[in-house]
Parts: sequence; C-alpha cells; structure tokens
Amino acid sequence: MIQFPNYSYDYQLLIKHILDRPLEWAPEQTIHYRDKVTYTYREFYQRIKKLANLYNNLGVKKGDVIAVMDYDSHRYLEHYFAVPMMGAVLHTINIRLSPEQMLYTINHAEDKVLIVHKDFEPLMQKLAPGFETVEKVIYIGDGDNDYIASFENEGEYESLLAAQSDEFEFPEFDEKTIATLFYTTGTTGNPKGVYFTHRQLVLHTLAEIAAFNAFSYPVSFNYTDVYMPLTPMFHVHAWGVPYVATMMGIKQIYPGRYDEMIVKLLVQHKVTFSHCVPTVLQMVIGNPATEKLDFSNWKVIIGGSALSKGLAQDAMKRNIRIMTGYGMSETAPILSLATFKPGMEEDLTDEEKLQVVTKTGFPVPFVKMKVVNEKGEELPRGKENVGEIVVRTPWLTKGYYKLDNKSKELWKDGWLHTGDIAYRDEDGYFVITDRLKDVIKTGGEWVSSLELESIISQCIAVNQVAVIGVPDEKWGERPVAFVTYKQGFDESNAYSKCRMTMMTFVEAGIIEKWAIPDRFIAMDEIPKTSVGKIDKKVLRKMYLEKYS
Amino acid sequence: MIQFPNYSYDYQLLIKHILDRPLEWAPEQTIHYRDKVTYTYREFYQRIKKLANLYNNLGVKKGDVIAVMDYDSHRYLEHYFAVPMMGAVLHTINIRLSPEQMLYTINHAEDKVLIVHKDFEPLMQKLAPGFETVEKVIYIGDGDNDYIASFENEGEYESLLAAQSDEFEFPEFDEKTIATLFYTTGTTGNPKGVYFTHRQLVLHTLAEIAAFNAFSYPVSFNYTDVYMPLTPMFHVHAWGVPYVATMMGIKQIYPGRYDEMIVKLLVQHKVTFSHCVPTVLQMVIGNPATEKLDFSNWKVIIGGSALSKGLAQDAMKRNIRIMTGYGMSETAPILSLATFKPGMEEDLTDEEKLQVVTKTGFPVPFVKMKVVNEKGEELPRGKENVGEIVVRTPWLTKGYYKLDNKSKELWKDGWLHTGDIAYRDEDGYFVITDRLKDVIKTGGEWVSSLELESIISQCIAVNQVAVIGVPDEKWGERPVAFVTYKQGFDESNAYSKCRMTMMTFVEAGIIEKWAIPDRFIAMDEIPKTSVGKIDKKVLRKMYLEKYS
Repeated sequence: MIQFPNYSYDYQLLIKHILDRPLEWAPEQTIHYRDKVTYTYREFYQRIKKLANLYNNLGVKKGDVIAVMDYDSHRYLEHYFAVPMMGAVLHTINIRLSPEQMLYTINHAEDKVLIVHKDFEPLMQKLAPGFETVEKVIYIGDGDNDYIASFENEGEYESLLAAQSDEFEFPEFDEKTIATLFYTTGTTGNPKGVYFTHRQLVLHTLAEIAAFNAFSYPVSFNYTDVYMPLTPMFHVHAWGVPYVATMMGIKQIYPGRYDEMIVKLLVQHKVTFSHCVPTVLQMVIGNPATEKLDFSNWKVIIGGSALSKGLAQDAMKRNIRIMTGYGMSETAPILSLATFKPGMEEDLTDEEKLQVVTKTGFPVPFVKMKVVNEKGEELPRGKENVGEIVVRTPWLTKGYYKLDNKSKELWKDGWLHTGDIAYRDEDGYFVITDRLKDVIKTGGEWVSSLELESIISQCIAVNQVAVIGVPDEKWGERPVAFVTYKQGFDESNAYSKCRMTMMTFVEAGIIEKWAIPDRFIAMDEIPKTSVGKIDKKVLRKMYLEKYS
Repeated sequence: MIQFPNYSYDYQLLIKHILDRPLEWAPEQTIHYRDKVTYTYREFYQRIKKLANLYNNLGVKKGDVIAVMDYDSHRYLEHYFAVPMMGAVLHTINIRLSPEQMLYTINHAEDKVLIVHKDFEPLMQKLAPGFETVEKVIYIGDGDNDYIASFENEGEYESLLAAQSDEFEFPEFDEKTIATLFYTTGTTGNPKGVYFTHRQLVLHTLAEIAAFNAFSYPVSFNYTDVYMPLTPMFHVHAWGVPYVATMMGIKQIYPGRYDEMIVKLLVQHKVTFSHCVPTVLQMVIGNPATEKLDFSNWKVIIGGSALSKGLAQDAMKRNIRIMTGYGMSETAPILSLATFKPGMEEDLTDEEKLQVVTKTGFPVPFVKMKVVNEKGEELPRGKENVGEIVVRTPWLTKGYYKLDNKSKELWKDGWLHTGDIAYRDEDGYFVITDRLKDVIKTGGEWVSSLELESIISQCIAVNQVAVIGVPDEKWGERPVAFVTYKQGFDESNAYSKCRMTMMTFVEAGIIEKWAIPDRFIAMDEIPKTSVGKIDKKVLRKMYLEKYS
C-alpha cells in the first residue's frame, strides 16, 4: 500500500474556528441582552478574550470545570466560547433543578469556578455550605450596584472583566478535548452528566446549518435572520443554535429571565427565528399582549416535547412557520427535523402540512437513526412496527459521566438508545408514540414518576401509588397519581394529607412545587403486569378512557 | 484533570455517510447521463455495490489505486463513491493532458486498475505500452456494441457490472484514509499529485452546503435545485459539488462530452445550478442556439479563472445569477465565494453587484485565509497591500505525492501557499491581482510558460524568449511570446518556423496544440531584473500599454 506523507498544518475542529468567519464577515453586527446590553461581534470577541484572561488569572487550567448559573444572556454566549476555547470545560447548571440535585451536579462535575447571577442569592445560601470542589465564585450583578453578595466571592463579573487585557492567544489542542458538560434528569435517581468535545460541537454546528438551510421548508435559518432562543441556554447548549447563529454572523437577542420582556424583544428586534418547548410558544401566542401582533416573519422550531396538532394549528393560524425538531441531552441534541420534502410546500393542504410538521421528523445529515426491536433488529416502515429509536451520529455523548453501567446501557450494541418508542412511516419520517422509561416532561422539564411515587408513598394516607404523565395542552404533560388509600382515608380527606407530605419534600429542596400531581385518582386495586409490576400501559389507557 | 470515558460508537467521517440521508430521503430521485441513461438514487446505490464487488473480484485491496478516464457521467459519480467507500483510492485522470504527461501520472500514481472510455482508444494505443503498474483495464462502450478494444482488457463496464451481486457491506476504517488522488499541472515540470482523505471530503461537503445555503445571495444551492456540472469531473472532484448534490438528494444531470448536448440538457431538465470556467459559460451564452432561452432560473458559479466584468455583465443581462468561486487543486478546492453581504441583494445597483460578484470572494466557513508579505506577516486591508494568499482549512492536500521538497515549499510556515497574489478590500473580500508563479490558464487548463519558453527556444529562429499569459475574453488567458530573433530572421519569416517547431512537440504528445501562443512579439532585448532574470512584470505592463 502506498504511503501519503503529511506536511500540512493539522487543522483541528475547534470551537474557536466557528468565530473565524463572523469576526471578519460581520464585525459590526450586534448581540443584545434584554433592554440592557447591546454590543458588536467585535466587542463580543474582545470580551471573550478578557474572560479567558480572567479565568487564566484565577488559575483555571486545561480540563478544569467552570460552571454557570445564569439566565439566557450575552454572558452565557461568552462562556459558550471562552471556556472551551481555553481548553477548560463549561458546566451549564440547570437552574430549575431542586437545590439538592443542583448541589449534587456541582460536586459531581467537580466544578472549580462558579459564576452565579445575583437572583440566585437565596439558593446560594443553601448550596455554598455543601460545595466540595468549588474554589472561586464570581457573581453577576446585572446592573444592580446595590447588591452585596452574602457568599464568599472574587468579585462582580463586569468589574472583573473590565480589569482584564483583551489580548489572548487561544491555544491549539486535540479536537477530542471535552468542551461542555451538563446534567440530564431524564430518569429516576440522580441527574446524569453528559459531555461533548470540540469536534462534536463543530460538526453539530455544520450539520445544523446544512439541515436548516439546504432543506429550507417550512422553517429555514440563514444569514438574513434575527435570532432569539427561547430554550434555556443550560439545556443542551440551547440546542446548539447559538453556535449556528454566531457562525452565520447574524443579530442575536438573549431574553434573560422568561417574562413579559420576551414579547417586547420579539417586536422591537423583528425576531425571525426562535426555538422552544410547546409550553413557551403557548405562552407567547396565548398572551393577550400578542393578540394583534403580526407573526408572519417568525419561524419557530418546537422540541423538548411533542408539538400537538392543536398548538401547531394555532401557530399556523397566526402565520408562524413552525416544525418539530427532535433530540435529547445525550445527542447534543439534533437528530431530526420535520422538514417538508420537495413539492410539499406547494402541493399540500394546510391540514396535510399539519400532519408533517407534528411528526418527530426526518434524520438530518450524518444522523443514522432506526427503529429496532428488543433484539436490536431494524423494523420495517409502517405504523404497526413500533420499537425503540437508536442512533449513530458524530455528536453523541460518549457516556454518562462517572457512570460505567449506565453508559454501557446507553451504548448497548454500539448504538445510542434514546428510550423513545416510535415507528417510521412510509415516507421515512419518524413518529414517537411513547417512552420506554417512565418519565414525565412538564413545561420542558423532566420529572421522574418513580421519584414522585416514592414520595407519595410516604404519605400516611397512601397504600399504593402509581404516577403517570398525561397530555396537557399547556405543559405538554402533567403528572397524575393513581392511589389506593389506607383504611380510614378516602378522596375526601386524603389529598390534603398527601399534599402536605409532598410540600415537606419541596421545602427540603428535593422536588419542585410544580412536580406535585394535580390529580389523585382513588382505586380499589392498581393493575399489575404478569410479573407483578405496575402496568402503566393499562393505567394510561384507563386514564384516557375514563378520566381525561 | 478529570477523565471522560468513551463507551460510544467511534463515528468516522467517511464518504459512505454522505449517502445515508439521500438514500432514505429521495430514493426515487433521478440521475441522468446525456440522453442515454436515467436511473434513481436507489439504483445508483445498487450499482455502487455492484462496482465494489467488481473491484473486489478483480483483487483490489485497501489503498490500491483505481484510475478513471471518462467524460462527466453517472459512471464517474459511481466511482466518486464506490472506490473510496471500499477503502481504495480514486485517481481521476486529466484527459486534457498530453499523452506523455498522462502516462507519467498513471505510472506515478501506481494505478492498478484503469477504466477507460472507448473514445480514448487511439490514446490507449500510445499509453498502454508504457504502463508500469496497471494490471487490469476495463473499457466503457457507452452503448456502442460494435466497438472492440485493441488493448488487453477485463471486459466492458456495463457487462461486468451486470454480472455482480448488489450486496456489499462497505467497511469501517479511519477517516484519515486517502480517498482521492489527482494531478495538477500548475507549474513547470511534471504534473504534481494531490490527495484527499475521507474526512477532508466530508468536511468539504458540509462546508460547501453551509456556504451555498446559509449565505444564499446571489447564488444558492439547495434541495429544490437541479444540478448539472460543467467543470470536468477529473478536475478537483468537479469542485466537490457532486458530493453536495448527492447529499441533498437532488436531480443530477451529467453531460458527457462537452458539445451541443449541454444546451439540450439545460432546457430539457430545467437545470438551475451549474459551475464552470468562464470559457464554458461564454460558449453557452454565446451559442446562437441559446439566444432565445430564458436563463432566469439558472445559477452559475464561475471559477478556475477570473470572472471578467464583461462576461458577468453578459450573464446578468441574460438573467443568470452568477458569482465567483475561488480555489485550486491543492485546496479540494473551495476557499472563497463572492457572496453578497446582508442587504446587498436589495440595496446595490447592478453595476455595484457586478463589482462584488467578480471579486475573488469571501472565505467560506472554516477557511482561514490571509494576504502575507514575503516574511509571512499578514498585511492590512486595502488595495495597496498586495501579497500572497495563504490558507488553512481542514481540507487541504497534505502535500504533493512523492515530492518532498515541493511539499515543504507548499506548506512553508504551516500555511498552504496558493501562489496567488492579491489584496483584501475594506469589506474583507479578496481580490487576486496576479500570480506568483509563472503559469498561464487558458480555457480552464494550466500551461507552463517555462515549458513553452523551453520549446520555443528550440526553434532555429529564436535567440531569447519570454512567455506571459495575457487576458482573453474567451479563454480567460492566452499565452503570448516575446522573442529576440537570430540574425537573418525577423517577423516576416520567423513565426512559421517557430510554429513548425512547436507542432513537432504537439505531435510527440508533449504539449497540446492550443498551448501554442497566438502571438509572437519581436523585441531588440528582453527586459531583465537586477539579478538577471527575465522581468515578466515589465513585460506584462508593456503588453497592456503597447500591444493589447
């Protein structure tokens, strides 16, 4: 075999190269944070370099973990770049976790430096005593000059940045260096850490650009767009889209805390592209303040939970261009988009379009995705062939951090197992019908039904309990509990007892208040499978037939 | 430093993955060859597998080189995929080289199997006796059942394919495996081999999709387009665009030999996207048969030679959407595109647009490109700061095959040296003004002026000679010779002598006929630089001022 020598520069797929083009193409383009901050890409890059100097001066080394607790902001975007670009690892903390879980992730990830928004001051008082590895804390004053942090800290973000030099040479290193780390609460037990390399995030960025643009109906995303994410930036890098937006050099709007400011920003900046869970879209178009708004230039990708036909229809009536995107924390996230095939834009009726955009979608380039049976054999197309979705792409997490067995389970047979149950239709689109594991997704957040069962079962009134997720127009899903009560208790007196029990867990920071089921349904006996396990399939069917 | 374990499937960027999406997305989409062949992507993939079985049965092993001599065809596309996908190396033979050079490349590349179109029968008679490594030859009858090859062969392409199984499992291997090899005739001496890995071609494909689509004015290329290349497929994988077209699952038209069929195919298939050298576009729009054609749906990228304002204007008058693309054999090829910045499509006058589309262009994503002085220092923007273009991207050749010193020169200081002289304007676009090395590009083909000088100097009438390339509306450039004649010779009798001399070199297969300069300009003395070298800069200036 002949040998081909290599005299060339060894180009690594590093996140810093995402910046090469926009800094030259659109240095005067702007990035916005609420109504508080506006700056150019040029200034953005200067701040990235200052940030790297700041961490360098704090003693951050290659492989150290820097954690962020902030709302969606320009600061978060700065961290998306600066931290990986210096060879460190960015941990994006899920600020919707219970304090207990949050502390678990901070210690488990071995965070060394923590950047925290002043709004989390009460939370910090709970967390700080439990820190095992955090050495330095920086707080974000967000313009509030009167705020004084009660916890030990290095100073305020803006003041610290201002003191740094804007000269920094970002190093070269292997593209397989870990860039980001965050935790998924998809199943029972503690959150699990997933991690992504520079190579993976660069390829993910390129594949998203290709998928959004080469296949541009019904939703495209190109250099003429104005971008505002409505998926939290701690969630799978806001689906990787901030990297795409930055690469294209377009105007970006970061809304901070999700409140009435969202609508103001949408209007003020003429936002054309967003992505969010169904609940957020519902809130925007259901908000009386938007009743008379012209949404005809707004394109939205919906993910995180299934896009219901009702919501899609409501959106389309408001002239929003909408489609489903599918992925998960483990997959960086993009796997599929409910893109139109050639001709559909012109030929389909609105009702037919609705059918397409609410599917789970078609795999994007460089995603190999199939439906398999329990033996791992690929199933043929057709509604009757339901099985688990397994995938291969170049941007999947290589395991769960420090969880050997869970990692092996995730990667059984060399395919990443999504835990989603689906079929593939005749046109090749995937349609998810169920979830393998027993979790509920409400308002974009995972709640473990097993955990809820464990808590409810601790109520004095309860004999047996089974929790399922039921469809909900507003939240995607809501938990519902089926219970058998102990003697002396019934529907008249049990619910208040149970609610009281659950509130003690909320106060202890173990679960969030919104995780408490809205409804307790009393039964004589809870249905079981042949091997004696609670049969949730039967419960779901019962719920739909009798209680919904 | 914490360790992140890897339990995952090790996804390599292999050419076979380009096929994953189109085979599922558009299996019934069609690929066409002239008016002779039409088949679907599904059949295309079956033929790729048959082709792999054919080569497998002929004893082709990983790393073996398979060479193709064909016009632009579906067969060529099959080779773009099948050969690299089985781990072998595809050598795309430049059929416009002189027989001597062609033989040199075949032996230098160590071709093991050769696939040759029947039209090259006379050529084969010259070449075959000189083969040093070729073991098997397959000929392409192209529908001609009466043709009998005079050279030893394994059989006819279609008959051999028909006999193969369409089951083949393409192996997994390292993405840094070499996929393609071909020769560039950019400078003096023998053609030089450049080579590209699977990883490089996959990244090139993704970057082209991103560049063509995310930045979509004035020329985009997406899944609604119909594609016909007008750049030979032996030339830098037809700029990599067949890989892009295949990935998007669109209709593709391969025109075969460039003749009147081109216009027929353009019309019949409503082609919307092509790319070519200026000469080919000139031929199409200058052809009386196209005078009444509506070109308003045709988008064309021009590369290989500078797009002149005159040609761009003619094209724009015919409603063709046009822009410059820049690259070279060594760069796979894409480096830059003359894309509009946001707002230009709406705001610029036609004259201003003309200015933009005829620039060398803006670097596409993941291309780092700069203008440097002789010390390798980057020059500031502005017309007055002229220097050499050097680049880094993930898809540059790692050297010249078996040419150690040339490779080191190419990659001096870790940047690929293009040999093109340019400045960067205030908006960041590059504009090439000259070439460092002394070559002429005519009709899309390189001609070495040094080689021409060496031949002309062998004419009995000639004392001294210097050849330069001069701008030509039709061919991009044409060679012009400046000569001092020996005693007894002058303009009245020398040219015919010289032409005769040159024809003997043409007949010997050393140069092509079209390489003969159109014009010999007699001088008393040829200008020299301070170190006694011919001063071509002065000659070029003289030509423009006195002779053009």
